[in-house]
Amino acid sequence: MSTPLTWGTPHPERADAARNRQLLLTTARELIAADGPDCLTMDRLAERSGLGKGTVFRRFGTRAGIFQALLDDNERALQQEILSGSPPLGPGASPVDRLIAYGSARIRFLAENHEVARSAVEGRPTSGRRPPLSQIHIRVLLRELDLPGADVDLLAGQLTSALEGPLLLRLFDGPEVDGSALTDRFEAGWRYLVERVCVPAV
Amino acid sequence: MSTPLTWGTPHPERADAARNRQLLLTTARELIAADGPDCLTMDRLAERSGLGKGTVFRRFGTRAGIFQALLDDNERALQQEILSGSPPLGPGASPVDRLIAYGSARIRFLAENHEVARSAVEGRPTSGRRPPLSQIHIRVLLRELDLPGADVDLLAGQLTSALEGPLLLRLFDGPEVDGSALTDRFEAGWRYLVERVCVPAV
Repeated sequence: MSTPLTWGTPHPERADAARNRQLLLTTARELIAADGPDCLTMDRLAERSGLGKGTVFRRFGTRAGIFQALLDDNERALQQEILSGSPPLGPGASPVDRLIAYGSARIRFLAENHEVARSAVEGRPTSGRRPPLSQIHIRVLLRELDLPGADVDLLAGQLTSALEGPLLLRLFDGPEVDGSALTDRFEAGWRYLVERVCVPAV
Repeated sequence: MSTPLTWGTPHPERADAARNRQLLLTTARELIAADGPDCLTMDRLAERSGLGKGTVFRRFGTRAGIFQALLDDNERALQQEILSGSPPLGPGASPVDRLIAYGSARIRFLAENHEVARSAVEGRPTSGRRPPLSQIHIRVLLRELDLPGADVDLLAGQLTSALEGPLLLRLFDGPEVDGSALTDRFEAGWRYLVERVCVPAV
């Protein structure tokens, strides 16, 4: 299995395991850049990285696991901005402004990473998925809002699905993407939803 | 491919094709009842129904297609209630009340059909999915509400994902389901979301 990048509490990794992980991710990126994501297999990754198949298998579990690890690694910059970047994405803005900013950043992230995201999902069993970054961060911000009557854990799941589901369906399935028109539309839709859900009716 | 049950405009089907479809669905249900969904394969379905493998393949395309057809067939009763049942699920109530009632009915439907729903999703490519019943019906009701500033098509996708995504993740992945406590929670969460999104701030 890939080492989950646990959110907020980094998982310690032995130095050689960390080196192997970086080598595998770098090699995977090179293979994708050269031949596209469809040509990346466990066997090719093992061969090209010079590590054993067993190492690749233990590290990633499945082909989808390779892409999940790439996505996690790409996600780290976004995590860093949330934890210590400038507001409104980073700390220091109101929870509503941070929710809107997070959604915008996530939408652009998924639009840029949709080929990797797609391969991380395809063929993966429907069970055993861990809560995504979005759900964890959205839940934290919703707790700060203290919405009367809200089931915050469930609401975080609902908003995560609302943020990511339609965008991923569109990116995976729609006609060729015109990047900025698409992300503008989804960013506006996310802002609308957050304002309806989170700004108290006066 | 399975014949899509197009929503509102039934697709005409030749009598022998309709008979074969019913035979295949009935046989699939018997096999699932006897041995569980994991044992249902294209080959077993062909053998047990006495129809050729080619017929099963043309009808369903993939194993997941069998389960999608079962889900569509089970969904017909729900469609019928929406089209001509009593309010608030059927016509005659306000759009907000109909949205809440539809979500409750859909939550109970998915809780009852989650094994079939899971097998309909597993192994299916992430592209080529058609808009689900939920999205079509939610969009119709949102249009009636005439929400100022809303991107109704996108909002329908967001609410569909919010309604179905967290529930399906929970049903596929969570601990053994205590049916009514689970559906009560999701029904309350859906009502909360609809009221926040759709009831205008005064």
